[in-house]
Amino acid sequence: MNDFCSQGPPTEFSSQFIDFVPLATESVPLAQARGRVVAELLASPEALPPFARSLMDGYAVQAADTLGCSESTPALLNVVGEIAAGASGRTLGLGPGQAIRIWTGGELPKEADAVVMVEHTRLAGQDAVAVFRPVAPADNMVQAGEDCAPGALLFEAGHRLRVQDLGLLAGLGIATVQVFCRPRVAILSTGDELVPPDQTPPPGKIRNVNSITLAALVEEAGGLPLPCGICPDDFDRMLALCTEALDQADMLLLSGGSSLGRRDFTRQVLAAIPGSTILVPGVSVHPGKPAILARQGNKALFGLPGHAASALVGFLCFVRPLLRLYMGQGPSLGLPTVRAITGQPIFSMVGREEYVRVRLTPQGDGAPPLATPVAGKTGLLGPLVRAHGLLPIGRDVGGLDEGMDATVLLLP
Amino acid sequence: MNDFCSQGPPTEFSSQFIDFVPLATESVPLAQARGRVVAELLASPEALPPFARSLMDGYAVQAADTLGCSESTPALLNVVGEIAAGASGRTLGLGPGQAIRIWTGGELPKEADAVVMVEHTRLAGQDAVAVFRPVAPADNMVQAGEDCAPGALLFEAGHRLRVQDLGLLAGLGIATVQVFCRPRVAILSTGDELVPPDQTPPPGKIRNVNSITLAALVEEAGGLPLPCGICPDDFDRMLALCTEALDQADMLLLSGGSSLGRRDFTRQVLAAIPGSTILVPGVSVHPGKPAILARQGNKALFGLPGHAASALVGFLCFVRPLLRLYMGQGPSLGLPTVRAITGQPIFSMVGREEYVRVRLTPQGDGAPPLATPVAGKTGLLGPLVRAHGLLPIGRDVGGLDEGMDATVLLLP
Repeated sequence: MNDFCSQGPPTEFSSQFIDFVPLATESVPLAQARGRVVAELLASPEALPPFARSLMDGYAVQAADTLGCSESTPALLNVVGEIAAGASGRTLGLGPGQAIRIWTGGELPKEADAVVMVEHTRLAGQDAVAVFRPVAPADNMVQAGEDCAPGALLFEAGHRLRVQDLGLLAGLGIATVQVFCRPRVAILSTGDELVPPDQTPPPGKIRNVNSITLAALVEEAGGLPLPCGICPDDFDRMLALCTEALDQADMLLLSGGSSLGRRDFTRQVLAAIPGSTILVPGVSVHPGKPAILARQGNKALFGLPGHAASALVGFLCFVRPLLRLYMGQGPSLGLPTVRAITGQPIFSMVGREEYVRVRLTPQGDGAPPLATPVAGKTGLLGPLVRAHGLLPIGRDVGGLDEGMDATVLLLP
Repeated sequence: MNDFCSQGPPTEFSSQFIDFVPLATESVPLAQARGRVVAELLASPEALPPFARSLMDGYAVQAADTLGCSESTPALLNVVGEIAAGASGRTLGLGPGQAIRIWTGGELPKEADAVVMVEHTRLAGQDAVAVFRPVAPADNMVQAGEDCAPGALLFEAGHRLRVQDLGLLAGLGIATVQVFCRPRVAILSTGDELVPPDQTPPPGKIRNVNSITLAALVEEAGGLPLPCGICPDDFDRMLALCTEALDQADMLLLSGGSSLGRRDFTRQVLAAIPGSTILVPGVSVHPGKPAILARQGNKALFGLPGHAASALVGFLCFVRPLLRLYMGQGPSLGLPTVRAITGQPIFSMVGREEYVRVRLTPQGDGAPPLATPVAGKTGLLGPLVRAHGLLPIGRDVGGLDEGMDATVLLLP
């Protein structure tokens, strides 16, 4: 029985992922932390804002003094001081019947509990102001700690930092943050038939596409690609190159060997790497097979198909989840999804998981888009270029009828 | 009448955008082209693949020779040669009744029109093979140009390059691509109340958050942030800093001046910059106001609010669309959206466009998620950290009832 018959489903892969652990962590400044994954629970070291601030240009007051005032019967308050933006009002006194001129961002006096907008006032002589619209306590100001209380939980380990998260950390004075390291991924294309993309292939040869696409996929997933070029189908050279590449990397992607013979060859190379163990010899996923997984300690070694489109789908299904695990997130696909309606019947082979390339056509009235398969053989890039996403069909499902609900994974 | 009363809707901004044009273009290698926007129509210079290739390990044949064969009555073919992966079969002859051993990726002989998988064959002596499953023409092979025909339209100007696009270009030998330049965006935070994020603010002062958040937003949108630090509320210094920053940049973001007085000040500075014209003195969008737009030639000058959360929303609504225009895309928001159902009534003020921070809660059975507003004043970061997206409510709408369809912009 050859391996094509014993290919396991992709769940075999994910079950092997539990033996891998997240990478080491490092400290990065906020300016480089967007998209990075927090490595430890973060709590707020202080209150944000650190003091009560005015949100408006106007007058700091005691709200009770404005009760019931109106255009015709304004509240008349004595102006006893002024607080500029960035100036501290905490030492200024404010008694009943008094107001202090304050600018947006200014620190309120302790006794003030609201700010009257300047638009709702009129000057009434040298040191007095007429307020003609009442305010409630806390109006037009933020309390100390209203944005974030001291000790509040900010982010748990595994949280991916977005722009607003960086803003909150900056406001709290957390200028560097401990995050999981970016996985270094060595990428080696194998095959006697390959020449670099900038060369004109002689008869029988083609250009190496996977070095470009796999590097871009690694980068998109948050990893650091280490392109290692092309290796011919030579056992000793491939073994030496792989062993050397793994020294510098957390993961190795070997593409090529889509065929029976070449696949055995790839597996033999992966098995011969010092300290390596084959975990999964192949999976029945279409496209994307044959994908081989081996490990050397916590380093993952993937054998991906040679066809660029198949390698791309294989990467999204198997490699990307492990990169996410390395970075402290769950080993999920992590791709954005959209709900869609199948625009025509979609066939699939029972016994293998399929990722059908689909185009999405918007429909009116807020209805989900129509998903229609893109024609073309699975190894080709053109159909993937015309596709918006992949529609996964389970191993035990023979296909989908027209008009059915479906979830489409958007291609990154 | 002060400017708060004369604020236009954000459409005023977009209508001003038509006076701006895309930036210059540059040539980048494929390895750096992911996410970049194509600057000119690209057509295929050649066929991909350049020749008919085998997709399987097996035998190149004339399909007619396998017609009607089966396990019990196999077709017997003479094996007249072998083609390895990367080897050219174009000079090999293949007559009726003949087969040539071929490996995945090998170039088919001219006379072959199909490949039989090795799994569907048995060796029958030294130079013969028994085929026990018929193939149709084009089975298990790709034709020359089947992935991409010579002269085929690849991408139009304005197309943002994805991973599979890079793969197609690499396969066709297009090793560099002409793309629109990344906009250089100078970022200046203004205000006497600001200290850098790594300092402990003295009484009345707060940390500068916008330098971090706006730089991250620029980067996310595909631009190059040029952080220029903090400028106190000093007309001459601000004018000098802005003028200098614009020398190196395609766009200037000035944050601060959320108040009446400060806003006038910002506008005066922007108006005083040599060659500058104020296009829009403010907009009635909540949060995000006051956002000012000026221009100096094709350079855009934005005055954004000082509150980090408001500046962030203002950036997404006004700045990001113009960055997209600079990069050859339409001046649209360009944010991913999800359909959601309002989880409770959402109030909004008629006469201003609102972007309500919402949290999304998944529902079962493939139903859209529930969108519920996140409580908290609009200038605060905490609520934005707890939010998944923004729910836009139009200027003429007083709010949304519970259970209504809504489109939510996902925060990047």
